[in-house]
Amino acid sequence: MSVDVHLAFPPLARIGDPLERVSTPALILDLDAFDANVGAMAAMAKKAGVALRPHAKAHKSSAISQRQLEAGAVGICCQKLTEVYPFVRAGIRNVHISNEFVGADKVAMAIELARHITLSICVDHVQQVRDIGAAADAAGVTIAVLPEVDIGQGRCGVASEEQLAALADAIAAHPGLRFGGLQAYHGGIQHVAEWDQRRVAAARSADKAAAYVRFLEARGLPCPVVTGGGTGTVEFDAASGVFTELQPGSYIFLDGHYGSSEWLGGFRPRHGLFIASTVMSTAKPGMAVCDVGLKGVAVDSGLPRVHGAAAADLRYTAANDEHGILHLVDAQQPDRLGERLLLIPGHCDPTCNLHDQFVCVRDGVVEALWAIDARGLSQ
Amino acid sequence: MSVDVHLAFPPLARIGDPLERVSTPALILDLDAFDANVGAMAAMAKKAGVALRPHAKAHKSSAISQRQLEAGAVGICCQKLTEVYPFVRAGIRNVHISNEFVGADKVAMAIELARHITLSICVDHVQQVRDIGAAADAAGVTIAVLPEVDIGQGRCGVASEEQLAALADAIAAHPGLRFGGLQAYHGGIQHVAEWDQRRVAAARSADKAAAYVRFLEARGLPCPVVTGGGTGTVEFDAASGVFTELQPGSYIFLDGHYGSSEWLGGFRPRHGLFIASTVMSTAKPGMAVCDVGLKGVAVDSGLPRVHGAAAADLRYTAANDEHGILHLVDAQQPDRLGERLLLIPGHCDPTCNLHDQFVCVRDGVVEALWAIDARGLSQ
Repeated sequence: MSVDVHLAFPPLARIGDPLERVSTPALILDLDAFDANVGAMAAMAKKAGVALRPHAKAHKSSAISQRQLEAGAVGICCQKLTEVYPFVRAGIRNVHISNEFVGADKVAMAIELARHITLSICVDHVQQVRDIGAAADAAGVTIAVLPEVDIGQGRCGVASEEQLAALADAIAAHPGLRFGGLQAYHGGIQHVAEWDQRRVAAARSADKAAAYVRFLEARGLPCPVVTGGGTGTVEFDAASGVFTELQPGSYIFLDGHYGSSEWLGGFRPRHGLFIASTVMSTAKPGMAVCDVGLKGVAVDSGLPRVHGAAAADLRYTAANDEHGILHLVDAQQPDRLGERLLLIPGHCDPTCNLHDQFVCVRDGVVEALWAIDARGLSQ
Repeated sequence: MSVDVHLAFPPLARIGDPLERVSTPALILDLDAFDANVGAMAAMAKKAGVALRPHAKAHKSSAISQRQLEAGAVGICCQKLTEVYPFVRAGIRNVHISNEFVGADKVAMAIELARHITLSICVDHVQQVRDIGAAADAAGVTIAVLPEVDIGQGRCGVASEEQLAALADAIAAHPGLRFGGLQAYHGGIQHVAEWDQRRVAAARSADKAAAYVRFLEARGLPCPVVTGGGTGTVEFDAASGVFTELQPGSYIFLDGHYGSSEWLGGFRPRHGLFIASTVMSTAKPGMAVCDVGLKGVAVDSGLPRVHGAAAADLRYTAANDEHGILHLVDAQQPDRLGERLLLIPGHCDPTCNLHDQFVCVRDGVVEALWAIDARGLSQ
């Protein structure tokens, strides 16, 4: 008995394969829906006269960012420093980090990135400005700094004009830093289900951002950029007259959480992200067990939903590590062993972060495999 | 402005670095606790005269399996076919797949693996036996097949003597298959918090397994192996006289979920797994935001707990994608920006599956980096 160190498992899928032959679990991207979502968002932003800077944290794939840039995006957002690198390697040169960071290792990465690309970052504490400012001054690079203002989320971002003024003054003290405008995002209202309630919530948040813009203008500091907005509020943010730039991420997929929201505007995303699964145990009457559990789908925003015709008689009711428990509506049905299912994940961002590839399918045939090249890069 | 395609971020940690210099988020393995847990479990199994076959799904790292084998384990368990390959590449030659699988791709992997290593698998449906049996017969390999019996979990596994007999007969019909014994695992009772209640539950499950063993013996089919048991019940399973082999996985780590259980026996695991985190925003009074959210820690079994002295005044209260929300017990405390925290994950298995490396620390110094080489391999 010998061990061949080159022993390798077959690819998840091959170009030209039918969807039914893709090994499961697999993250499936429906290219027709994806193309439609990318195009509709780009058209909506263009029509509104605002810049589109899609968030890469949703998909973590440079192949997807490249298609968004080809459709007219001005750059991308990342959430973490290490996350930026695969996108830079793929040739993307304009990145906004829409999140705070602290630590010498993070500052060093920001400086290194700023030597190669157009980088903007967020701050909500003067110590962050001092740290990155000292490093930028010493390195002779220029970094655009956007203070984050809290417009209702109650998480990061300053919550007073005094805090904002202190950040602006601190930025001005460093030749290596440039005031880039404001970061303003309210994640909590993105999933307000009713369209009109979401509109009201978005307007309230935009008003808060506008007040900070006016405050700075009155101090003689115009905001070249006000960036924010997510998939749920993007259409309101685009029309607000406050935001100059939009950061939606999930719109390319429409996960289960967003799918349960009301969409009454011009932008109506389609479900494009699925997890292919196989029923691998039917030993119990009234239930089936599939091969997608906690390691194949994130459940923080609800369990996945069965897609298509199978949804009529199968409900995904519990996720174990590597098992998905499905209840049969009619226990007398024929044996489902080996049946293939498509699941709609509750939350796309952490689901994509579990997988290494998008299996891209059009008309039931595998057209491409796109690497999730920033998967796991959270530093 | 040029883009260097070789641009790369620095390593997560360097050997010899103090823990405080590890980039965050990072998965930290306390080697003293790990060594103690590995040694204690091996000693417990040896004393009880049962084989130890630790489950690799908990850690997904061949470096860890190698240390468990050095401590006396007879082999390892995996949960999926692709998961097996990194362990084989690392030289491990005895793997039990403690889970059912269906599909031509999966059968082909099992046959390929059986050419190189000692492989055993689980079934709970005669169609699975026929598919793998036909392939094994054709390939001229031998695979040990262990029917899974349901001992209370109500998930996979047969629930009647008739089903079990049908599986045994189906196995006997294939020269490429060998009846290997029984797989018997009840995941649901592993986290019964009270020691005595857990003992009672384990005994009830072991009784169910024993009844299936007697049934087969009465049919003239002795069970060479009865394999099962998890970290929570392992000491009872070892002493049951029913199980010949134990499959604990989480014992090397003691995650938060297991940490909240009562441990009154000879085996008392220690917390060994942490996530290093940094406070990166303190813009709001009474709270702090750290850099570990849903992409750094699994929350299916509860939010992470703050470890050590900081636990006295910080509570982790919510996980967003890349943010962890911490509430300060005393809002008047000094600014915590940049403070480093260790978090105990609620559930180790899906948490390890988010990371690429264990940063192995002893006495506060990085001693090794171990690849999580089976991370994401769920097919």
